[in-house]
Amino acid sequence: MADETLDFWFDFASSYSYPAVMRGGPLAAQAGVTVRLRPFLLGPIFKAQGWDTSPFNIYAAKGRHMWRDLERLCSDLSLPLRRPDPFPQNSVLAARVALIGLTEDWGDEFCRAVFRAEFAEGRRIDETATIADLLASLKRDVDQIIALAQSDDIKARLRLQTEEASRLGIFGAPSFVTRDGELFWGNDRLERALAWSKQHQG
Amino acid sequence: MADETLDFWFDFASSYSYPAVMRGGPLAAQAGVTVRLRPFLLGPIFKAQGWDTSPFNIYAAKGRHMWRDLERLCSDLSLPLRRPDPFPQNSVLAARVALIGLTEDWGDEFCRAVFRAEFAEGRRIDETATIADLLASLKRDVDQIIALAQSDDIKARLRLQTEEASRLGIFGAPSFVTRDGELFWGNDRLERALAWSKQHQG
Repeated sequence: MADETLDFWFDFASSYSYPAVMRGGPLAAQAGVTVRLRPFLLGPIFKAQGWDTSPFNIYAAKGRHMWRDLERLCSDLSLPLRRPDPFPQNSVLAARVALIGLTEDWGDEFCRAVFRAEFAEGRRIDETATIADLLASLKRDVDQIIALAQSDDIKARLRLQTEEASRLGIFGAPSFVTRDGELFWGNDRLERALAWSKQHQG
Repeated sequence: MADETLDFWFDFASSYSYPAVMRGGPLAAQAGVTVRLRPFLLGPIFKAQGWDTSPFNIYAAKGRHMWRDLERLCSDLSLPLRRPDPFPQNSVLAARVALIGLTEDWGDEFCRAVFRAEFAEGRRIDETATIADLLASLKRDVDQIIALAQSDDIKARLRLQTEEASRLGIFGAPSFVTRDGELFWGNDRLERALAWSKQHQG
């Protein structure tokens, strides 16, 4: 495992987090950097900015561009894309389950499975049945994990994670934070953030 | 001159338009695409979105990231950077003068000179003296051009240009529009927009 680490902050509801998470593993391996996935909730952060939904819904022209841009991007990456309906999906349960998986050894794979279900297959990740199905295909103990995801401990951990994101100055997703505190926002900054980690921590 | 063209929409007040305009010429030449600079005003477009200043001023965390990101970006490109004060600068006069220059043969050079004055040297482009000085160093007839820039004709052309940007779905700067109507937003999409122009129009 590489010494260099990069914190990779994302929300399962975030459209540009989809290509970023799918690209993250191979790019990080290539760069010799260990990426730590940090799910959080954009909702409270958007609310603090006065928004009650995604800015892509509030600002129509911005939203139209994002969907077209994501189409082009996914096509370039040979990633299938289906626009989630509704958008954004409620990502609370997925994030809580991911927090459990990321302390064990199935977190990264679960995160990719959620994004694939949501953005490639158009499945509803806000439904417990979808999350249960993804856990089952990863050969996990579905009932135990879903119960744990609803525990006060895990709920509190997701709240803390979101508060930490906010404290770090994160205002959107995906965002990347290097060990020396540099914040990079956006899927298009992933390569630069990995290179920074390598240069400044190597 | 290449057959392929790309409309390059920007506002002199826009921070990410600075590296984009400075990179634009060499990148376009390399790609074999003719870039047409189209200055417009973000003000009326932001106003329609409910903003009375730059979103980088309204949303503090977003603003902090932008300035740091621009620092890193300019450093990577070996472009000097001085943060304009105030930000954003009033860009109306610069845009009107650019419209004149772009129908003659000194428009591209004038645009780069304005961005350099504003973002590299910290000069105030909202002051007529600065614009006059830039015109003088380009060996232009300063008084004639400044007078023409205040004419009803040029004022109307800048309004039309901004209305066209809005009609094209432009909501920020820089934005690139290909001949077949693809809209790309952001300095980081410049390479992709040039490649698109080449692929789809070549």
